[in-house]
Amino acid sequence: MKILSVLLLLIGNLLTTKAQNDSIFIRKIYDEALENGQSYQNLKTLCKSIGHRISGSKQAEDAIRFSKHLLNNYALDMVYLQEVKVPKWIRGKKEFAQAENEKGEKLTLNILALGGSSATQGILITEILTVQNIDELKKLDPKDIKGKTVFFNESFDEKYFNTFDAYSHCYPLRGDGPNVAAKMGASAVLVRSLTNNTNNIVHTGVTTFDPEIKPIPCAAISTQHANDLIEWIKKGKIKLHLEMNCQTLPDVLSYNVIGEIRGVDNKIITMGAHLDTWDVGEGAHDNGAGVMHCIEAIRILKKLNYKPQHTIRCVLFMNEENGNMGGETYAKQSFEKNETHLMAIESDRGGFLPMGFDVMGTDFQLNTIKQFSSQLNSYDLFKIQKGFSDVDIMPLVKYYPEMMQLGLFINSQAYFDYHHSYADVFETVNKRELELGAAAMATIIYLMDKTLK
Amino acid sequence: MKILSVLLLLIGNLLTTKAQNDSIFIRKIYDEALENGQSYQNLKTLCKSIGHRISGSKQAEDAIRFSKHLLNNYALDMVYLQEVKVPKWIRGKKEFAQAENEKGEKLTLNILALGGSSATQGILITEILTVQNIDELKKLDPKDIKGKTVFFNESFDEKYFNTFDAYSHCYPLRGDGPNVAAKMGASAVLVRSLTNNTNNIVHTGVTTFDPEIKPIPCAAISTQHANDLIEWIKKGKIKLHLEMNCQTLPDVLSYNVIGEIRGVDNKIITMGAHLDTWDVGEGAHDNGAGVMHCIEAIRILKKLNYKPQHTIRCVLFMNEENGNMGGETYAKQSFEKNETHLMAIESDRGGFLPMGFDVMGTDFQLNTIKQFSSQLNSYDLFKIQKGFSDVDIMPLVKYYPEMMQLGLFINSQAYFDYHHSYADVFETVNKRELELGAAAMATIIYLMDKTLK
Repeated sequence: MKILSVLLLLIGNLLTTKAQNDSIFIRKIYDEALENGQSYQNLKTLCKSIGHRISGSKQAEDAIRFSKHLLNNYALDMVYLQEVKVPKWIRGKKEFAQAENEKGEKLTLNILALGGSSATQGILITEILTVQNIDELKKLDPKDIKGKTVFFNESFDEKYFNTFDAYSHCYPLRGDGPNVAAKMGASAVLVRSLTNNTNNIVHTGVTTFDPEIKPIPCAAISTQHANDLIEWIKKGKIKLHLEMNCQTLPDVLSYNVIGEIRGVDNKIITMGAHLDTWDVGEGAHDNGAGVMHCIEAIRILKKLNYKPQHTIRCVLFMNEENGNMGGETYAKQSFEKNETHLMAIESDRGGFLPMGFDVMGTDFQLNTIKQFSSQLNSYDLFKIQKGFSDVDIMPLVKYYPEMMQLGLFINSQAYFDYHHSYADVFETVNKRELELGAAAMATIIYLMDKTLK
Repeated sequence: MKILSVLLLLIGNLLTTKAQNDSIFIRKIYDEALENGQSYQNLKTLCKSIGHRISGSKQAEDAIRFSKHLLNNYALDMVYLQEVKVPKWIRGKKEFAQAENEKGEKLTLNILALGGSSATQGILITEILTVQNIDELKKLDPKDIKGKTVFFNESFDEKYFNTFDAYSHCYPLRGDGPNVAAKMGASAVLVRSLTNNTNNIVHTGVTTFDPEIKPIPCAAISTQHANDLIEWIKKGKIKLHLEMNCQTLPDVLSYNVIGEIRGVDNKIITMGAHLDTWDVGEGAHDNGAGVMHCIEAIRILKKLNYKPQHTIRCVLFMNEENGNMGGETYAKQSFEKNETHLMAIESDRGGFLPMGFDVMGTDFQLNTIKQFSSQLNSYDLFKIQKGFSDVDIMPLVKYYPEMMQLGLFINSQAYFDYHHSYADVFETVNKRELELGAAAMATIIYLMDKTLK
């Protein structure tokens, strides 16, 4: 009994010492992020010197060069590019929309073509058919839809506490609405911007057509102009004048940017974010912030001279916004190279206050994170729950169904004020919140590197 | 034994039903705040139609009228004004500061007089003596200070996770630095702005002189100009030209604005925020947001037809910024009227994401809140900890030492970007975060009304 007591005491002391060491190291991570952080200045360069960077664009190439340069600066063990074939969709000359009533009065509408939209071939003049959502559209007779512009007008439900839930609810209107409307004979589609606000900012995003469906012109409209349009429609017959000049060009060669600190073994922990953005604004929150979370987290671990057990890999994915070819390529090639993947984490919810981690996996995996609750709570990382990881790292699940996937959970309240719009600019990111996101990433990577076998 | 089991089961069921009823009611609070919220529009009016509103100003009177009008609109049981004598300090013509080196080159500096500062009587020309903080100043010989402008240049320590801790650390420089410098013979004081940022925004605030000390001119300087000034000082002798025109006028009559829902008994739960601001910006975060949290919380409880056990009192205090006469008067008169006070809560940390409650009190009081952790965690109110309540409700402690005091805990990361500056404007407040603050206030008032006896 005495030997057992002594043993238990020894184990207890060892565990305490380990927790204390972890505490000290995590404090160093936060100090480095907050005192010597480089993420804010790097994000400024990405946003202001390069700007938005849709797949296949000159700016996307610039972003690849810039982020590779940053990773090279931080003296990692390996920095390299991974070839990715990406779609190339271009907006062309700025789109135009105008409603005209029977008196000939005109109302110009703020719109942005959706990624994947086709052009109008000159000015397209149609009637407008308003529906709330896809279900409502599907109940209609195709002959009442034919030749019209379908206007999906469902608003975000403000009752959702997490704004991503409101987004998920409305997402099909933009992602699949144009496809369904095209199948039913519509000539064009307008979608109410996916945002919590009522104002004149337009929020674009991708839409997808089934292979057998010819894409039609489709655009997001600002919520204020959506409301205005509804008022006009109430008063009488409206014609919509629509001009869009977008084009889908042949696929082009692009790259994922990868930096690694080699571990004692070859097992891999991936942290990622996407480098591409929509072709408006500066992609500050979506996803410049995530990119800087990852680059800064690996910089901090290297700066603190951390020697990982497993290989820590920072992957800046190309083409999340309209194809996810970066994520698909990374997962497929990892599998083909017979790599062992232990965990992946993504940051793709903006540069606001980090609040915890969504765990996509089993109860055991959730508890693997939860055992560190007290360490994480010290830095206000309270939300440790099951949830979605994110788009870029999702394809890994196909090949590594048992790996742990995490998403950095970030305060969502203001995210859709900026998402996919001209408003997503550097000035809307708070320096300390960005730095705390990077520290949270470095912290979870550190803890999991020491935990996962 | 069987009877005991049945009894325990009954009690268990009752407790579960109570928790379920609470859950349902709290969900209604959040739905009302997020779907039908009036706080954002009301804050817009306060900020844009009235603007900043220092004690004794015309705008402070307007804010009293406007907030009384709002409370009247919400059909409370009683809305009234409480007389408060407040100091009246005015900035006068805009202050001016310029550094001049030996070559006659000049650098104009962004400054703002501190509340309580005296005027310069024309242009005051002095040498500059730089110190980090009060301790460093106190070690100097008064003859080296005499006739100079003391420049307190200590920066915020970014390692503090909660920015209020960095503020508390530096607060004495502004609050007491001019007083200490005056005692040691200084002619004027500059204080580095209390903020996390390096830029050209100036952050003012109150300073206090001992009764026997004649106030001297003192001002905050922007952090960027503080850095620039240090560079100039390194290169050679600098003369500071300072002109300030502030005045302290006789005290004037003003008011706290109070609205109540009467309870079954006469015991009182106070929720408060301060209506006055500094005389720059719009006081959106400090403390328009807190004012709207309180007004909206009582509106929601009334709208949901909540019949409280105790009297719920919303108090909009006058003169927190430079005297706290509203808080002092409220506490003193409460005591003189023999009122029984159970609890007070204040919101004075901006309109950002609410994250929980600081409890100023005993372990028992902390646990009184903590028993509702699971309800509160559902709305991301995770931080339930001992801490500071806030300035307006602090005087209540003198008269009611056993009452529970709470402060609404709000994400602090961006607060000192705006605090006491021209940058504290309506546009920096997010609608949903403001609404969640109001819902958090209504929720804790509801739970405590049902709990406290």
